[in-house]
Amino acid sequence: MEQPSRLAGTVRPGGRTARVRAAVLEATQDELVERGFHGLTMDQVAVRAGVGKTTVYRRWGSPAGLVVDLMTELADQSVPHADTGALEGDLLANALSVLEALHDGRLGPTLQAMIAAATCDEQAAQGLRAFYSRRIQEWAGAVDLAVKRGELPEGTDGAEVIRAISAPLYYRLVVSREPVTREDAERSVARTLAAARAGAFVSPG
Amino acid sequence: MEQPSRLAGTVRPGGRTARVRAAVLEATQDELVERGFHGLTMDQVAVRAGVGKTTVYRRWGSPAGLVVDLMTELADQSVPHADTGALEGDLLANALSVLEALHDGRLGPTLQAMIAAATCDEQAAQGLRAFYSRRIQEWAGAVDLAVKRGELPEGTDGAEVIRAISAPLYYRLVVSREPVTREDAERSVARTLAAARAGAFVSPG
Repeated sequence: MEQPSRLAGTVRPGGRTARVRAAVLEATQDELVERGFHGLTMDQVAVRAGVGKTTVYRRWGSPAGLVVDLMTELADQSVPHADTGALEGDLLANALSVLEALHDGRLGPTLQAMIAAATCDEQAAQGLRAFYSRRIQEWAGAVDLAVKRGELPEGTDGAEVIRAISAPLYYRLVVSREPVTREDAERSVARTLAAARAGAFVSPG
Repeated sequence: MEQPSRLAGTVRPGGRTARVRAAVLEATQDELVERGFHGLTMDQVAVRAGVGKTTVYRRWGSPAGLVVDLMTELADQSVPHADTGALEGDLLANALSVLEALHDGRLGPTLQAMIAAATCDEQAAQGLRAFYSRRIQEWAGAVDLAVKRGELPEGTDGAEVIRAISAPLYYRLVVSREPVTREDAERSVARTLAAARAGAFVSPG
């Protein structure tokens, strides 16, 4: 628990309980990066975190419980939406933040492990849904501001615009297994903006 | 090997070798649907297929080898692109075929198991890449025809249009874990068409 920890520094200081959580989530992420969800065991996380097994079982219950808490922590850490004053800049910031996450040596494998976990574990699926719901709602705010500025038609669905920015990048990463480049991020922004300006993201009713 | 098999009927008749392959791929898909990739074992596939373990090990080598061959067979079975004479109809046919595959009680879990397998196994990742590459290239032909008819600007990248149709559906299914509806399929077509008509899918150069 003495080694530097990317997660530890961001968990609210609160004495032993907070330190234990930070160490356990750090160890969980280490294990996901190295072994994936199916290699994740409570015992190994406890050993790696330097925490008693009983504590890990009591507080997190199962590997899926660890993954859900890690996703909650990652969502808590994620940054507010960009506000460059123009929608194109904000959407590019969003696309590049997704690109950076997918390529990050630690966060990228973590996201892929979570996606894999969600295909076969309902608790992990719920955690993933909550994680992306928070990210999507946060960034939808940037689209709402653009609608107020008159950059996009009234009634444009901000959450759908944000999903449309991310979707082609995730599709290449986990479905068609193709490289995901900065060009892909820029194209996603250009295409989504073209459709949004044409009113294709206006919700009916 | 006597029971009806959805895959068996489509494998080229060729005596015992073809029958063994059909039975093994059928059993592989059964196991993926019931247990996911991480529950897939060579021994269980051999038992389920009524084929000797030695044969399964010799011909497929590993669980990933089974998955790759299953993907090859599924790609061989997949239908040619629609040709309704108008791009919107063709793209809707594409989006609805993706929707149907994702919701199919057998193919849907198979695709999710393959996506999960690819996150942790390079051979499975290569198989998935080959599978979607064939699907994307096949359907890109419908976009190329539309460009020839003058429905879309010269230089429109057909493969990218097809990726853009699928991406939001897969994003909801495996990333944000949200319901994927017929409305989502229709929206994906409308948005992709709006961007494509605006020239946002024209390749540079």
